[in-house]
Amino acid sequence: MFFQKFKTPGLAHVAYLIGDKGEAALVDPRRDVEEYLSVAQRNGLAVKYVLETHRQEDFVIGSAEVRKRTGAKVVSGRHALFGHSDLRLGQGEAVSVGALTLRALETPGHTPESVCYAVFVEEAPGRALGVFTGDTLFIGESGRTDLTDAEETAKHAGELFDSVHTQLAPLGDQAIVWPAHGAGSVCGGKIAERDESTLGLERAYNPVFRLTREAFIASKVEERLPRPPYFEHMERVNLEGGVAVAKAATSVRVLSAEEFDADGAALIIDTRAPEAFAGGHILGSVNIWLAGLPVFGGWFANEQSRVYLVLPSAEDLAKAVTHLAGIGIDGVEAVLAGGFAAWRDAGMAIGYSETTDPRRLAAELDTTLVLDVREDSEFEEGHIDGACHLFVGDVDRHFERIAEALTSKPNIAVTCSVGHRAGIAVSLLERRGIRAKNLLGGMTAWKKLGLRTVRGTGRTITTKDIEGERS
Amino acid sequence: MFFQKFKTPGLAHVAYLIGDKGEAALVDPRRDVEEYLSVAQRNGLAVKYVLETHRQEDFVIGSAEVRKRTGAKVVSGRHALFGHSDLRLGQGEAVSVGALTLRALETPGHTPESVCYAVFVEEAPGRALGVFTGDTLFIGESGRTDLTDAEETAKHAGELFDSVHTQLAPLGDQAIVWPAHGAGSVCGGKIAERDESTLGLERAYNPVFRLTREAFIASKVEERLPRPPYFEHMERVNLEGGVAVAKAATSVRVLSAEEFDADGAALIIDTRAPEAFAGGHILGSVNIWLAGLPVFGGWFANEQSRVYLVLPSAEDLAKAVTHLAGIGIDGVEAVLAGGFAAWRDAGMAIGYSETTDPRRLAAELDTTLVLDVREDSEFEEGHIDGACHLFVGDVDRHFERIAEALTSKPNIAVTCSVGHRAGIAVSLLERRGIRAKNLLGGMTAWKKLGLRTVRGTGRTITTKDIEGERS
Amino acid sequence: MFFQKFKTPGLAHVAYLIGDKGEAALVDPRRDVEEYLSVAQRNGLAVKYVLETHRQEDFVIGSAEVRKRTGAKVVSGRHALFGHSDLRLGQGEAVSVGALTLRALETPGHTPESVCYAVFVEEAPGRALGVFTGDTLFIGESGRTDLTDAEETAKHAGELFDSVHTQLAPLGDQAIVWPAHGAGSVCGGKIAERDESTLGLERAYNPVFRLTREAFIASKVEERLPRPPYFEHMERVNLEGGVAVAKAATSVRVLSAEEFDADGAALIIDTRAPEAFAGGHILGSVNIWLAGLPVFGGWFANEQSRVYLVLPSAEDLAKAVTHLAGIGIDGVEAVLAGGFAAWRDAGMAIGYSETTDPRRLAAELDTTLVLDVREDSEFEEGHIDGACHLFVGDVDRHFERIAEALTSKPNIAVTCSVGHRAGIAVSLLERRGIRAKNLLGGMTAWKKLGLRTVRGTGRTITTKDIEGERS
Amino acid sequence: MFFQKFKTPGLAHVAYLIGDKGEAALVDPRRDVEEYLSVAQRNGLAVKYVLETHRQEDFVIGSAEVRKRTGAKVVSGRHALFGHSDLRLGQGEAVSVGALTLRALETPGHTPESVCYAVFVEEAPGRALGVFTGDTLFIGESGRTDLTDAEETAKHAGELFDSVHTQLAPLGDQAIVWPAHGAGSVCGGKIAERDESTLGLERAYNPVFRLTREAFIASKVEERLPRPPYFEHMERVNLEGGVAVAKAATSVRVLSAEEFDADGAALIIDTRAPEAFAGGHILGSVNIWLAGLPVFGGWFANEQSRVYLVLPSAEDLAKAVTHLAGIGIDGVEAVLAGGFAAWRDAGMAIGYSETTDPRRLAAELDTTLVLDVREDSEFEEGHIDGACHLFVGDVDRHFERIAEALTSKPNIAVTCSVGHRAGIAVSLLERRGIRAKNLLGGMTAWKKLGLRTVRGTGRTITTKDIEGERS
Repeated sequence: MFFQKFKTPGLAHVAYLIGDKGEAALVDPRRDVEEYLSVAQRNGLAVKYVLETHRQEDFVIGSAEVRKRTGAKVVSGRHALFGHSDLRLGQGEAVSVGALTLRALETPGHTPESVCYAVFVEEAPGRALGVFTGDTLFIGESGRTDLTDAEETAKHAGELFDSVHTQLAPLGDQAIVWPAHGAGSVCGGKIAERDESTLGLERAYNPVFRLTREAFIASKVEERLPRPPYFEHMERVNLEGGVAVAKAATSVRVLSAEEFDADGAALIIDTRAPEAFAGGHILGSVNIWLAGLPVFGGWFANEQSRVYLVLPSAEDLAKAVTHLAGIGIDGVEAVLAGGFAAWRDAGMAIGYSETTDPRRLAAELDTTLVLDVREDSEFEEGHIDGACHLFVGDVDRHFERIAEALTSKPNIAVTCSVGHRAGIAVSLLERRGIRAKNLLGGMTAWKKLGLRTVRGTGRTITTKDIEGERS
Repeated sequence: MFFQKFKTPGLAHVAYLIGDKGEAALVDPRRDVEEYLSVAQRNGLAVKYVLETHRQEDFVIGSAEVRKRTGAKVVSGRHALFGHSDLRLGQGEAVSVGALTLRALETPGHTPESVCYAVFVEEAPGRALGVFTGDTLFIGESGRTDLTDAEETAKHAGELFDSVHTQLAPLGDQAIVWPAHGAGSVCGGKIAERDESTLGLERAYNPVFRLTREAFIASKVEERLPRPPYFEHMERVNLEGGVAVAKAATSVRVLSAEEFDADGAALIIDTRAPEAFAGGHILGSVNIWLAGLPVFGGWFANEQSRVYLVLPSAEDLAKAVTHLAGIGIDGVEAVLAGGFAAWRDAGMAIGYSETTDPRRLAAELDTTLVLDVREDSEFEEGHIDGACHLFVGDVDRHFERIAEALTSKPNIAVTCSVGHRAGIAVSLLERRGIRAKNLLGGMTAWKKLGLRTVRGTGRTITTKDIEGERS
Repeated sequence: MFFQKFKTPGLAHVAYLIGDKGEAALVDPRRDVEEYLSVAQRNGLAVKYVLETHRQEDFVIGSAEVRKRTGAKVVSGRHALFGHSDLRLGQGEAVSVGALTLRALETPGHTPESVCYAVFVEEAPGRALGVFTGDTLFIGESGRTDLTDAEETAKHAGELFDSVHTQLAPLGDQAIVWPAHGAGSVCGGKIAERDESTLGLERAYNPVFRLTREAFIASKVEERLPRPPYFEHMERVNLEGGVAVAKAATSVRVLSAEEFDADGAALIIDTRAPEAFAGGHILGSVNIWLAGLPVFGGWFANEQSRVYLVLPSAEDLAKAVTHLAGIGIDGVEAVLAGGFAAWRDAGMAIGYSETTDPRRLAAELDTTLVLDVREDSEFEEGHIDGACHLFVGDVDRHFERIAEALTSKPNIAVTCSVGHRAGIAVSLLERRGIRAKNLLGGMTAWKKLGLRTVRGTGRTITTKDIEGERS
Repeated sequence: MFFQKFKTPGLAHVAYLIGDKGEAALVDPRRDVEEYLSVAQRNGLAVKYVLETHRQEDFVIGSAEVRKRTGAKVVSGRHALFGHSDLRLGQGEAVSVGALTLRALETPGHTPESVCYAVFVEEAPGRALGVFTGDTLFIGESGRTDLTDAEETAKHAGELFDSVHTQLAPLGDQAIVWPAHGAGSVCGGKIAERDESTLGLERAYNPVFRLTREAFIASKVEERLPRPPYFEHMERVNLEGGVAVAKAATSVRVLSAEEFDADGAALIIDTRAPEAFAGGHILGSVNIWLAGLPVFGGWFANEQSRVYLVLPSAEDLAKAVTHLAGIGIDGVEAVLAGGFAAWRDAGMAIGYSETTDPRRLAAELDTTLVLDVREDSEFEEGHIDGACHLFVGDVDRHFERIAEALTSKPNIAVTCSVGHRAGIAVSLLERRGIRAKNLLGGMTAWKKLGLRTVRGTGRTITTKDIEGERS
């Protein structure tokens, strides 16, 4: 048996290649399929099937592209949200890969069409080796249930609970859990920072097993995760099996500082660390750290955006382009030759922002407004007393909500968990003419130092409020 | 939690790096530790412990080297065969790595000192995530029990059975199995070709779980695995924690065909595939395919040998040197510049051997003696009627056993499972002036074509006979 | 100044990226442009120009693709055979890249449109740093002059001589020579195995400088180089700037031995070394060693061919696909999973061929017909007495020419310079039911051993004869 | 012929591997010889000779190590400063590598023992293909002549002039120039940023050719290059052939922020870009950007130093260790796990510094003291009016020279050419309790914007003064 995980950092996505006797199935492939197919080829495996656990809303899938290149059949459950599959398995139906059996289990909840696939080896046909759980069951967590209809989160949470208990649990403690996402994904709240688990281990601590059905539903309703604007586009293209990579990284133009400056209409994303951005940057650029692109890129850019990149190193171009392409942003048009150093040495206008640290901020709270840009639940679990709250993804589009607050004290400090999201917010505020300091280390450092926090909603402007108004 | 497997092909050895919160433990490292330490560094992990499951007899360990470089403590059980450890854990004692707990379980059987280490995560402290099983429990198999004293194989088999049932089984079905070897290892008979399993899955089919204690002991006594001559040297150096890599691959001399030819005393190992060797080779060279070096190199070379290499590609030098160093053979002195092609083009004397295929051989059995060089048990499970048998490792050192048989028919064909070990034997016979054909595809192809085989010992010269005489 | 050579093995092609102050020109790019553009990006260079020295007949160019991806302008001379360029420089006209000046020099001869580009740096504007010589001047050689019209080889040779003496020589001894090809190219006869030279060094020994005009023309007329059938297709597509890579290597299907066998219509190319092929191969496969694909692949396959590959290692797939794509063969449909070993182990029918070596052959000449498949000039400079001659590219298509000769002695040995081309011929003969031995080491080994050769045409069937008949 | 350049960034050092027919010579190898030997092996080359052009003072050489590993003979001139060579060539004596001839030419000047090696190919024995010029002739420059005895710079300059004119020039315009250093080396003043040249091209613009002997000597006397303190140690170890690499990068300890902080005695070098350092850093750390380590590391650390590293990325560890080892600094003991981000997130004390840009600084000159830390000659060619000057390498050790000046205005801005050396100085000043701003873009940006500069020594504290006092 061949088995390999393919982790996509940033997205925290995991695809799997499972093979036997020259055949293989690819589970939940992302859009850039080169690596999967290359590994399959080098191991003498013909990709026979692409298994989809659900439509995916957080990245563009590669099913159609794998089918086109290898002749593989796209396999799914029977729900209509699998718009393009070649083989629709009903509950308990299976396909075989070499001597392996991959059996579909209908597990609605995260989304109505979700299925899992249990894997059985020849020598133990009655007991599953493992199960591809998609976004139904994560390690330490389960999939969010607010996506298809926020009004019905409770209903979906109940369905997910039932799916886990009636479809997955019966597979037995020995079954290894292979989910579609790890820690950091936007598809689940508190996924563990660990890639290894089994159903038996999950039973010991995962809320979906430890809580009662009622308590579980309540916890899901409370979850309130952000819903990035790019989800809608993903859902649309994934219904057709996703789209192939549209543009090679080598097609991105290399521009001098002067040329880079000339195009005022492009969105400049500076992907350096927030400290580096603070030390000097292009005025008007948005600071999204490199690994944050696959999640936060989609809050500020979309499939129509024309993106210009500033990179930590020229070596990072392919990674940045792939990160953005993963969420459907194909419009990376240019990269700054020589990075920020070239801009600097060309005598171009430079922006600066300040940073601070927990002890300094603690001493200056009287004169400093704290803007906390974490998610609602993070904020509520503990924040600096008096902090104003707006999720980073809403800072720009719902700026008016905080505009007044920002004038209430002479200084502004922005915080998140460590400083990455605060870096985004600082750059967005700068574009609106407001200077703010990034609290380096964020609430992580703040708490580590034992500085005081309060719980609850405080002066919060919640995502819920905003979502409510939107609808 | 950080978790990574490091598979050493050929040896079929698996080491593990497991880490949490900036700390890590390295389990059963081999001698060349660069890769382990580099991965640890890149992931910001300080190696705090080296966990040893047993002394290891099939490769040189890297514990002492890791300790020297990182300051890690070498951790083991309390048995005296752990000659050099810093921290000797008694039954049930544990060390911690970040928030992980690694608990020692005494599991004698494979060897008297063997221990396993169960891994517990913070969130489920009562239920093991997995267990490093060393050579006690493999996937689909258990460790051989004939090593420390062949007379007492049965006794050790009973011990191993008890260790598995009293120490491992109670960990629960959910525990993932992380053994020190995979398929192809000389430390177990029929390890599955799969790297993923759990105790619950093993319970469903692994002989140590499926057989009664008596039947299990009987099966172990029947096993009769070869005992390579290098085991003794490994055991000696591993008692001291192994030895650091003695010689960089870049220190191997590059010789022209003429220079290569000049040193008549060196052992020439040609690491190309048997077909390529058959098509042309240096007279007197021994043909051990590249991936076979870590197992079969040690049957024909030892720590005193001066080795000259012929490689499939110049790119393979580091791999070949590492393969041999892994079993204590540090004397690779030279490599043939330009490989066999350079020899060929220099007009040097060339040897040839013939190959055949199942259908052709089947038609020529009347005039062809078949020499089967597989292990005893492989032979007994099905061989060509009338075949003579001697394990490849004994072909040269016990040549007299087959010398007479080889003259019984005008032609000789050598077979193994697919042709690799037969290639070794063909080259050894050629050195003694005997021309033989390699049956390409070996008994694998023969059986696939439905050609006739017989079971039992036949005209076998078993390893047992030879071992018996030795003692 | 940035300067990098990109050597394409097999084709013996060299492209150049030359840059300054953030701008770059790419000289004579091949079809797969990823590497060029990636290097440019990593070095902060915008590709401003693609310089073409001539239309190229031996590989598909990448000019149109580079233009599409980077917006670069394609630069050429004014001749109509540059079918698609954006900027047509007249004699002495120049473009600038940063502070570099690249000046066009019209140098007809190899082909009528050929131009060279002299490079001048700012600090020494009157003296060329170097010159991109295309196929006009190679190191130790000059371009062949028989391509556009074999009848007018002499006329073109005279033109080339004049171009070198009137256009290149005046640049001065100090100018570095950067040609489009190195040793092994089909575009020149005896290119030196060295990549470094200057005009001053060439003046000391290159025939185009050492011979008189008359003697030079005579030598060119005598040259008689093979003209591969794919040249015509290359010329056609290159007139339009070449075509982009049509198929990713990851789109090649991975087939089992049985599936591979099922498609009787595909052309199976076995890319292993001739010794390995001799030891065992798929019946009916053609043996072209991996590095020989970009030259010899085009003699046996074309843009319509459906190609199946047997590789030395699964790692070689991308290389093989690129090699063939380089000469317009995009139809690689499948690769044998597991390589020849899988075929062997599946019990499939296996072909064998014999090899021999110079001393053995010398002893068996009475009963062995020698077929020499080198080029005409190689044969004429020294061959085995009594050898029959037909260039490898003609063995199959003009088989009738040698059919009778092949029956004249009981055994056949095929030779070339070392055994690669002989390997092709042996496989072609086998397809026609004729068994032949490959002389390992070929005439190189034969001569090294001081064995007897004769000069002249002998029983030669020359390319000239064949070409003559064709027209 | 095989030919490869090995460029060591930072050191701007170039070694060469030149080979033919299976033999090779390695020219001026640095200490870490793995790459050289690996390339030689992969190309089937036995390293027969190590050619030394001079003792080298700016990096630890690898001659003894190559000799030990390969059996190569170390070749040099006859001067006693070649302390350890095996073969001492007199003027015009040669060694051969395959069919190549490498002829020694005595070229004192840069140092008294300096030799060059002219390369001749078989086909043009009377005309050099190229010449390894060591530190005698660079591209666009010649070696500094102030090293062995600053009092006799003029005398040595005259010798160098004569060496170039009597030994190199006669080789002819066609000879390619292969020097031991490129732009950025501390061994020459204004080496061109180009790696390709010939003697003929150099004749057109290189000062050693364009100036009269007198003018050349005068220019050398004026040059006043810094003499790093590590030169002395290099000279000592290189007299014995250099020393092998003492410590693998994988032996560097990985420390958490707390552990990193605990060792107050170690020298912390932060190798991030100056902008990133400005945005946040460990108090007391010295900021030397990564590529600057091989030059500036040696001003602040030496062979006794215990170094702790903060890296841009964990991937950079091997590079940083190699950079420092190259100049004899083997004491890298620890690296900060997770880099500055881990420090930040642990709530550790953070230092900040400010940056500025040319336009802002220009507007604030009344209240800002400018400290220019470039070399004397750079300063004299144009600096900001009123700037104080002290070379970066002297800022700390001759701090008292500027201490008073630093109090003359309320603010301090530090500048160099772009901001790297200024970053070092800013961090050094911070360690002495002085806050200063780094002028991003430095004098490069300042001049690009057309802002006013003045020439001459101004309020300079020259290196000459300091050196004078030292002696």
